Order: sequence, then structure tokens, then C-alpha cells
Amino acid sequence: MFFSSDNWAGAHSSINERLARESTRFAAAYGNSDLDKAVEARFNEIFETEVSVFFVSTGTAANSLSLASIARIGGVVFAHSEAHVIEDECGAPDFFSGMRMVPVEGPNGKMTPATLAARIAGFPQDSLHHGRGAAITLTQATETGTVYTLDEIDALTAIAKANGLPVHMDGARFGNAITALGVTPAEMTWKRGVDVLSFGGTKNGCWCAEAIVFFNKDLARDFAFIRKRAAQLFSKTRFISAQFEAYLQDNLWLELAGHANTMANRLRTGINALNSARQAWETTSNEVFAILPKTSADAARNAGARFYDWPVPQNSPDLVGADEVLIRLVTSFATTEEDIDQFLSLCASA
Amino acid sequence: MFFSSDNWAGAHSSINERLARESTRFAAAYGNSDLDKAVEARFNEIFETEVSVFFVSTGTAANSLSLASIARIGGVVFAHSEAHVIEDECGAPDFFSGMRMVPVEGPNGKMTPATLAARIAGFPQDSLHHGRGAAITLTQATETGTVYTLDEIDALTAIAKANGLPVHMDGARFGNAITALGVTPAEMTWKRGVDVLSFGGTKNGCWCAEAIVFFNKDLARDFAFIRKRAAQLFSKTRFISAQFEAYLQDNLWLELAGHANTMANRLRTGINALNSARQAWETTSNEVFAILPKTSADAARNAGARFYDWPVPQNSPDLVGADEVLIRLVTSFATTEEDIDQFLSLCASA
Amino acid sequence: MFFSSDNWAGAHSSINERLARESTRFAAAYGNSDLDKAVEARFNEIFETEVSVFFVSTGTAANSLSLASIARIGGVVFAHSEAHVIEDECGAPDFFSGMRMVPVEGPNGKMTPATLAARIAGFPQDSLHHGRGAAITLTQATETGTVYTLDEIDALTAIAKANGLPVHMDGARFGNAITALGVTPAEMTWKRGVDVLSFGGTKNGCWCAEAIVFFNKDLARDFAFIRKRAAQLFSKTRFISAQFEAYLQDNLWLELAGHANTMANRLRTGINALNSARQAWETTSNEVFAILPKTSADAARNAGARFYDWPVPQNSPDLVGADEVLIRLVTSFATTEEDIDQFLSLCASA
Amino acid sequence: MFFSSDNWAGAHSSINERLARESTRFAAAYGNSDLDKAVEARFNEIFETEVSVFFVSTGTAANSLSLASIARIGGVVFAHSEAHVIEDECGAPDFFSGMRMVPVEGPNGKMTPATLAARIAGFPQDSLHHGRGAAITLTQATETGTVYTLDEIDALTAIAKANGLPVHMDGARFGNAITALGVTPAEMTWKRGVDVLSFGGTKNGCWCAEAIVFFNKDLARDFAFIRKRAAQLFSKTRFISAQFEAYLQDNLWLELAGHANTMANRLRTGINALNSARQAWETTSNEVFAILPKTSADAARNAGARFYDWPVPQNSPDLVGADEVLIRLVTSFATTEEDIDQFLSLCASA
Repeated sequence: MFFSSDNWAGAHSSINERLARESTRFAAAYGNSDLDKAVEARFNEIFETEVSVFFVSTGTAANSLSLASIARIGGVVFAHSEAHVIEDECGAPDFFSGMRMVPVEGPNGKMTPATLAARIAGFPQDSLHHGRGAAITLTQATETGTVYTLDEIDALTAIAKANGLPVHMDGARFGNAITALGVTPAEMTWKRGVDVLSFGGTKNGCWCAEAIVFFNKDLARDFAFIRKRAAQLFSKTRFISAQFEAYLQDNLWLELAGHANTMANRLRTGINALNSARQAWETTSNEVFAILPKTSADAARNAGARFYDWPVPQNSPDLVGADEVLIRLVTSFATTEEDIDQFLSLCASA
Repeated sequence: MFFSSDNWAGAHSSINERLARESTRFAAAYGNSDLDKAVEARFNEIFETEVSVFFVSTGTAANSLSLASIARIGGVVFAHSEAHVIEDECGAPDFFSGMRMVPVEGPNGKMTPATLAARIAGFPQDSLHHGRGAAITLTQATETGTVYTLDEIDALTAIAKANGLPVHMDGARFGNAITALGVTPAEMTWKRGVDVLSFGGTKNGCWCAEAIVFFNKDLARDFAFIRKRAAQLFSKTRFISAQFEAYLQDNLWLELAGHANTMANRLRTGINALNSARQAWETTSNEVFAILPKTSADAARNAGARFYDWPVPQNSPDLVGADEVLIRLVTSFATTEEDIDQFLSLCASA
Repeated sequence: MFFSSDNWAGAHSSINERLARESTRFAAAYGNSDLDKAVEARFNEIFETEVSVFFVSTGTAANSLSLASIARIGGVVFAHSEAHVIEDECGAPDFFSGMRMVPVEGPNGKMTPATLAARIAGFPQDSLHHGRGAAITLTQATETGTVYTLDEIDALTAIAKANGLPVHMDGARFGNAITALGVTPAEMTWKRGVDVLSFGGTKNGCWCAEAIVFFNKDLARDFAFIRKRAAQLFSKTRFISAQFEAYLQDNLWLELAGHANTMANRLRTGINALNSARQAWETTSNEVFAILPKTSADAARNAGARFYDWPVPQNSPDLVGADEVLIRLVTSFATTEEDIDQFLSLCASA
Repeated sequence: MFFSSDNWAGAHSSINERLARESTRFAAAYGNSDLDKAVEARFNEIFETEVSVFFVSTGTAANSLSLASIARIGGVVFAHSEAHVIEDECGAPDFFSGMRMVPVEGPNGKMTPATLAARIAGFPQDSLHHGRGAAITLTQATETGTVYTLDEIDALTAIAKANGLPVHMDGARFGNAITALGVTPAEMTWKRGVDVLSFGGTKNGCWCAEAIVFFNKDLARDFAFIRKRAAQLFSKTRFISAQFEAYLQDNLWLELAGHANTMANRLRTGINALNSARQAWETTSNEVFAILPKTSADAARNAGARFYDWPVPQNSPDLVGADEVLIRLVTSFATTEEDIDQFLSLCASA
């Protein structure tokens, strides 16, 4: 019953087998092996267009160096106020890009066209003292378990483009979003105007596999140097490539993300069916936010369940009752139906 | 016959097995699992003292963040002119530490007490315009295959201490140096005055395992933040821990490094025995620098051998004859006697 | 009728005379002249304690390097959401300090104990992912013409100290605040817990004279290097010293600030007396925010008055009527009664 | 008898008078006044081409921000090993540009085509690990009192251009070089392939006036933001403009530099005529390097002369005898014939 985060899960057996197979041979270092080249080419197929792909070690690195690739001095980046780049990366995006992150409000973890446009208007291109807009970044799936629809992405990227701003997508849970929407990777990215993507594998069954995918290849011009100077060029890069090869093979990544989403659905259904608990808000990816009696949460924890309390949103202080608690539950490729059912049963009986 | 670099080798089977075993369970992320704690404690045993240990993704990260931990504004770092931090890291140490690397000359890839002291003298602590000394870093084993003796390390660290400068050791090939000298990790580090160490596992049988080891724990005070902001905190850190657990178990790391050194010895002996070839300079770790007829090098390459040409040292332009070439040969845990003998045979017959 | 900003004014004749006198002699460069030392000592008298003083070129430099002196990696600085460091310095504080500025709300341009404490609570000292609190900065006088009372400063610095955070004061308009409160420099700074101060002279009759004053001298330990590396060490520093000597002589600086405040009072009184205009909010320093009919503003501009429109506060959209405009009026040492009266007369008759 | 540096001199009376005149009026801040625009246009005339001009506070700022404008990640800048950017700016150029300074050797403070080309060859454009060439910077007049001829500049810029590298000129003593060569500003800069120039006024009679002049205006595209974020945008910029207006009026700047050079000539002639002293090397600008008996140097100092000892060049340890000392003597617009003659007389009689 591990619902703390999808990064508490291990690695899928196919990933491990591919790594083990790779380990027995010699091959060129620093991304120059045949395998590295083959996997890079594989991304072209996945995205149905020619892309530039670079592997890095963490999701924070993927986001930070993506933004570094589109950095402008005195520039600011527009992100939802709950985005990982603002809340959870200890200033790494600011450090690597030299830019400030400007929070954009919006319900359900999503920027809206109105809130984004209003923020951008405050940072015009000649705004020497205040700073100028340089990029937008949107998180898909969001940090609060929701997913932008294609139309919602269109509306935001249209505003970005109208202001001359490139678009980054934080896809730490990219597979979960793709599966939730039932669309193709192309449809959710470059066809919507996304220029550069953090494509995450770690949370979905790899143990360390994060890629930066440039749809706008001009932006990748200096990226090899950006990555190297950021100490993110692995000598044995092919072990990341090996993970991605297995991950992308026969749609394993979609299968794993689909499983996580299905487990989250089971949780959602189960929680809705409980008298004592309810969802704090509706989600569609592999995160569920539930409000339950403190006694239920305690009982589940005592029985071995692992999950985090979540702060009550400042603009909805009445969402959670006095004897209740708001928790986050994250499912993963490794979550089982038994985990879910045991957890729900504990909540019901407490 | 892969002698290009020890980072062309794969990963040792024990490492893989440990990774595979780790992959099937859930555990806390970001270095907070039981395994992470156990492996950190293991380093205390290896070094016979209480240390602070942090894992990062690359050797460049280990060096750069080590220097960041001892950074002073306006500071400079003294390193051998052929050190990795100067020659091979694209300015990452400067970027992360905000300091400049000042080259110190010396034969055989080693700083000498005289050359180090002379350089330090140029950067006194009140040197506002020129910059002030902030640290020294020494590479063990060096980039040219040599190894500092304990007395040599003592002489350099004594100068550093006399000038109030902390000492960093770049141990990307730490195991090879330990094995070459036949000393303990403690004897080669904190007992010699080393304050912080880049402890490399990747070149010696791991696929991605680099640690920063603080003997002076005061220097580690802010390091968790330094690492996080540098985008070097893995979510699934325990997979690095797992590699290190296997690596340090039953002295596997010393066995692997010892094997690489033994293979290098076989190469050295074989090259010395050839009429047509010779060592460019004497080495004692797992790197061999050989001068051979171009025809021999070509023949070996055509037969599948892989190795890099090495630039002729500027101060010894006559070292290499007109029809000769200087090459670097690196052995690893995965090098076999057959590889060596086949390579020597190719050279002999060309 | 120049009310655009106090930095549109020239320089006071005493400043110029002192500069001219200084120009005819030779003296040591880089802050090592007798005059530099004498003026630094003068600051001890002004602040009734031993301080460390450093001159820089701009107010942005004073703020940014003050924050750099108290920088912690992964740290954040708490500032009012309308503070100069957030709104008007193009990210320079973030660039030099490596920290993020976190906005704190509060009416009248002031943080409140409640809003500050709530923000600090979000960034505890072990908050690796979100970031940790590192400092607070308060602006005195504020950007909106108000002035913190001594009690208000006490309440904020007490919270800072309770959280182990040093306190910076942005005193670009320090003299205006001192005069408005009728207190001593000591009473408004170190006696209230301020650790480091940006002491501005440029807006109050110098042409370029900004000082950083450390009350906590430990924080100044590395500052000479911070300033030099920031390219802020003037070779002919003594020309800044000369300005400050004249500025601090016989309380000239208080006289000039007092004049500016008196002129603002005249404006306030005059606007309050107009039927057609009113103050947007009450101010006490040398800034006045007025709401007047657009026709009045146009008439004044056409007659040569210079001032800036000011954005209507987002939380008070009804503050300004449809045919009205919100403007900022700044007085200075060089503002005359005639300027004020002519402006008021123009407004009245339009 | 102040020969310590030209920045020990005060300011010329014309500069002061112009400042005083400017001080009595109001005008737009941040470089937007009529005077700022007029002086910027004046630079077009001085350089006989359309340039982009930006004022900053120090020579270190001029050099550092010039290099920031041509920065490339992973880039290195080639400079003479004795250049100010390497020796005297505490790492500011590295800090602002994010690049490393690579020293190029050469006699008389000058890079040679051979030494420059050899260094550039070590940093090709695809050199991911070592770093890639990004710019060259040459100092005119040099730090050792010499001046590049036009042909010498041509030879260096041709190499830069052949390698795709922009060219920066550090003209802290630009006027002295122009006067020494008897050429026009255009002939010594853009007609020779210089892209961006640090144009110094401070050492030549201003008290604080440094400009960055872009001949390649494309490089200036982001410069307003670079300067602002570097805290180098003065609010009362027009006081720098006022200095430059007076400085450039009626060729005052050339007159002042010519005077300094003439005084240096008088020193050179006088020293050559002494039995006991000699020039360490031949110079042509306003710096003279002299070798004299220690007794002479002591006598001069005791009589009030001010000058710095200079380190004996490492490659010429025998240049200076056991009882001798190498000193640097710098003349300025304020140096008088009496100063020179008194100094020479003291040396002669000691």
C-alpha cells in the first residue's frame, strides 16, 4: 500500500532485463554508441516528426535545462503557481536559466487563458525594469492530478505564440496524461505548439530515464554544451538509452501508465463509494486527492499504508472538516488491485 | 579490444543483480530509504571515520559540487594543468563554484610542492583584484596514469593547510589508485589531509555511481541544498545506493580495480617487450601511454582495437618520431588477457 | 513641474562644489584614500555605532549585493510584493544573490506580521524541495509613499529573528523616512534589528552615491570580494566619498529630505483641498498618489508637468472612476513651492 | 609626483564644469534624457559609423558586460596572459559572461598571430569536453605600456574571423593608444574588425565615465537587459553623458591623452639619460617600466614620489639586478613637467 509517490515504485522487469543485457558489452561513451543513436531515432517515430533528444538525470534537470535552452537575460517564465518548477525544485530552474518563474493562478492546477494573458501583459518585451516575458511552461499531467485537454493547451499556446514566447511542457507524468486523454504524443505536443518537452520515464517504471525533446530544433542548437556544463552528460549514457529502448518497445510505457491510471480509477470509484470519504477535487491521471476522517487515515497508516498529507488550498479553507484530513494518493505501474482494495477496506472500517 | 576508456565498459554482473533485486520493491524516494541510510553508513566503515556522503550523477558533478561546497567569492582553485576540472568538464566546475581554476604545472600529471606553492603565492587572501586562493584539488590516479605517493600527497596538503586552503581529491579512478599503492582509503585521504573526495564507481564496474565524501563534515553543512539546486538529487536514489552496496561488498571494488591494474601491467610488460613500441612515460594505474609505429596502430585499429590518439606534450615535442603515434590505452574491470595479448600481437606483427 | 521621480532632479550645489574641490588633487584609488577612510568613519557617527560601509553605483546594486552578502544556496528572500527588488530591478537581486524573491502581501506597501509569518512558515530551514528562508528585506520609505513606524519595524524584525533570518532595509529613500518619522538613523535601523542597509543618496541630491551599511559586521566579511567581482569597485571611489562628505555635512541630507517631504505635504494639502481630486491613499514621505479627472491630468501635462500614471491596484479596481486617472507625484530636494502651486492650479482649473 | 596609476589623478576642470552645469536642471532618468541621446549620437561622429553605446560604472563592468554580450555556454575567451580581464578583475568577466578566460602568451604584453592561433586550435567549435572558442579580447594600449600597430591588430582579428570569433577591445587607455599611433578611432577599431569596445574615460580625466561601444549592432540586441540585470544602469545616467560630452568636445580627450603620452616620453628620455637607470622594455603609451637602484627608488619615495613595484617577468629573471628594482610609472592628464623632472632629479642624485 505505497501511495506516497510514483517515484517510490521500483523499476519494471523489462527495464531491468534490458539494462542487464546492455551491461555485458563495451560501447562508446557520452552518448555516441549505436544504441544511443537508435534510441534517439526511436523518439522520431514516437512523436511522428524529427526531434532532437537529450537525456539527463532528473526531472528537475529536464525542466531546468529546457528553460536554459530558451533563456533570455531579464526574462521571466510563466508557470502555474503550483508547478514543480516553482514549488519543488529549490530554485534550480532559476539557477540554470538565469530567469525568474512568475506564478499564474488557475483552478485545478491549470493556468487559464485569462490568467496567463494577464500575467504576460505585465512583462512586455521592452520592460527593462520589471523584466520581459521569455517562455511559458505547462505541466501535463498537472501536480494536482488533472490533465489539460487539447483545446485547453491550444488556448494557452496561442497566447504564448501571440506574444512571441516559446512553450515548454513538463511531462514528468507524460504517459499518464497521454493515456488519460487517449491521444497521440504528437497530438499533445508539437501539434499543439509545444516547442520543448520534459519527457519523464522515472515515475513510470524506469529507475532513471528523463529526456528533453526539442520539437523546435533551433532551440537545441547549444544544448549539448548546456547539458555538459550542467554536469548532466553521463559517460555511460547508453544505460539510459537502454531503459528508454525497453520503455518505448511495444508501447510498454503506455501500458504502464495505463495501469497506473486504471488503479487511480479504482481508487476514485472506491472513495466515492465510501460514506466517510470523498475526493477533494476530480482528477484524471494517477493522482487522487481524498478527504477522509483522521481516524481512517490513521488506521490506514497503522496498517502499513504510505501516503502524504496535502495542504488545504488557501482559497478553500472550508474544504476539509475539523476531524478530516486531505491526503494525496499516487498510483504507479507497480500498484496492485489488492493494494487499492486493502486500503479502501481499511478506510471503510475505521 | 576496447581500450578507449574505462567508461566504455559495461557494468559488473554483481551490480546488475543488486539493481534487479532492488527493482521489485517500493521504498522512500530522494535518499530517504533504509538502503540509502545503510549504504551511507557503509562509507563510514570503508573510510574508518564518520563521513557525510552524497550521491550525484556524473564525475563532473562530483567535482563541480565538491568545489561548490568550498566556494568563496573571488576565489580560485589550484589544479594540475591537465586535471579533468580544467581540461574535460566544459567549465562546469567554474559554473557551479563561481570560481576560477588556476593551472599548476608539474611532470607526470602531478603538481609539485614547488609549483603549487608558487601559484598559491600569487593569490594571497587579501588579493582583491587578482583573486584569492580558495582550495586545491588533486587527481588520484592522475589523468596521465600516474599515482601520487602518500608522501607526495602529504607535501601538497601541507602547503594547502599552511595557506588555509581545503583539499579536494578527484577520485574518478580512486580504486585504481588505492590498489596501485596498496594502502587503505583512510590512508590515502583524510589521514593525508583531504577534506572532500569525489569517489567514482562508474569507471570501475558500476553504470552510474558517483559519491561525494566529506571528511570535514562542516563543509557538508549546505550540501543537500547545493545538490538539489544543481538538479542532482535523484528521486530513486536507492538505485545508486544499490550499486554502491554491491560495489563495496566483499571488496568487489578493489577486486575490479585490481584487475584493471593487472591488465594494464600486462600491457606495460608487453609493450616494453616489443622492439617497435615503448611507453611514453611510466604509469602505475589502469592507463598506459604508448608510442608505436603508425602502421602498428593502423593495423590494430583495422583488426577492431579501439583507443584514442593522445596529443604529444608541448614540452616534449621530440618524444614521438615522425612515423610514430602516441596513444592512450585504458583497461577496466572487463578487460581480458585475451584482449591484451591480441592487441600486442597485432602491434608486433604490423 | 517635474514630479516623475526624485531621480529626475539634478545634484545639490554643495555636492557639486565638493566634487569640484576633490577633482584637483591626486589620491589613492579603489577606496584607499584618506577621504574614503574619513567618510567611512563619518558613517559610524551618523549611525552611533561601528559599521562597515561600502559604496556602489546604483540602488539596484546596493540591494542586490546586500542580499548577496547574506545569500544561502536554496534560500529565498521575503519582500513586499511591490518592493523594488521584485518589481523594478530586472532580476538583479536574484542574479547576484542566487536566491528567489518571495512576495509578501500587505496594505499600503507594507508587509504585516501576519503576512510575513505566513510566508516564512512555507519555507522552513529543512525545506529542501521548496526552498528555505534566508532573509527578509523591507523598504523604508516604501514604494507607495508610506513609512513603517518603529513599532511596525520591530514586529517584522522580531519575526525574522525568531526564524533566524537576517534583515535588510532598502533605504533608497532613507532620508525621507527618517525625516517623516522624526527619529535617528540608529533608532530606525540597528536598534530595530536591521543587519544591513542600502543607504541611498542619489534620489536626495547626489548624482551617484549609494552605500551599503553593515551593522552586523560579520556579514561584511567577504563583501570586498563580492563588490569587486560584481564590477562595482570604482577606481576613483573618492568621488563618491566626496559626495557623501558633503551630503552628511551639517545634516544637509536631512535638510534636503525634509524639504522634499514638506513639498509633498504641500501637494497633499492642496490635493485634499481640490473638489475634483483626492489622494488614492495616505502617504507620509515624498511620494503622493492622486486620483484626478483625466482632463486635469491632460491639462497639467500640456502645460509642462511631468509625472507617471500608476496602475490601479488589482484588489481595488473601483478606486478610480471611469473618467479619472491615478498618478504618482514625487517631490525632491529641487522641487519648489511654485512648482506645486502651479500644478495644483492647473488641476483646479481643468 | 604621483605615478601610481592614472586613476590616482582627479578630474579635468572641463569635466567638472559640465557636471556642475548639468546639476541644476531636471531631466529624464535611466538614459532617456535629451543629453543622453545627444551624447550617444556624438559617438557616431567620433567613430564615423553608426554605433550602439551604453554607459557603465567601471572598466571591469565594461569588459565583463562586453563579454557577456557575446557569451556562449561552454565558451572560452582568448586574452593575453597579462590582460586586465585575467589579472585584475577578480573573476568578474567569468562571472558575468559565464565563460572562462584562456591566457595567450606573447612578448611585450601582446598576443601574436602564432600564439593566438595555437590557443584557438585547442578549442574547436565542437569541443564539448574542453570548451569552444567564443571570442578574443585585446587590450589597447596594453597593460605593459605597449601599443598594437594597426597591422598587428589586423593579423589577430583575421585569425578571430577565420574562426568565427567576435573581437572585443579593452580600451581602458584607448585615448593613449590613439594618440600614440596617430590614427583615428575608426581606423583602430571597426576598420580593423573590432566588434565591441570598452571605451574608457575615467583614467583620462573623467571621474567616472566608461562606455561600451558596439560596432556590430546585432551584438547589442539584448544589452539593455544585460546592463540592467548587472545593476549598471544609473538612474542619473545623464551625469555620465555630461562627462562624455565635455570629454569629446573639441578633442579634449585626445589633448589629455596626448599630454599623458608626452609626459611619459619625457620620463622615457630622462630615464634613458640616467646612468643608473634604464627602461625594462620599450613602451609607447603613458606607462613607463623602469629598472633603477633600490636606493634611487627609496630616495624618490622618501621625497614623496608614489609608484608601484612591478613583478619581474618570470621568463626574464635576470632582467633586474640584485640591488635593483623594477617599477611602473604611469602618467596622466594631470602630470606636470615639474613632477617628471623632480622625479628624475631624485633618481639621479640617489
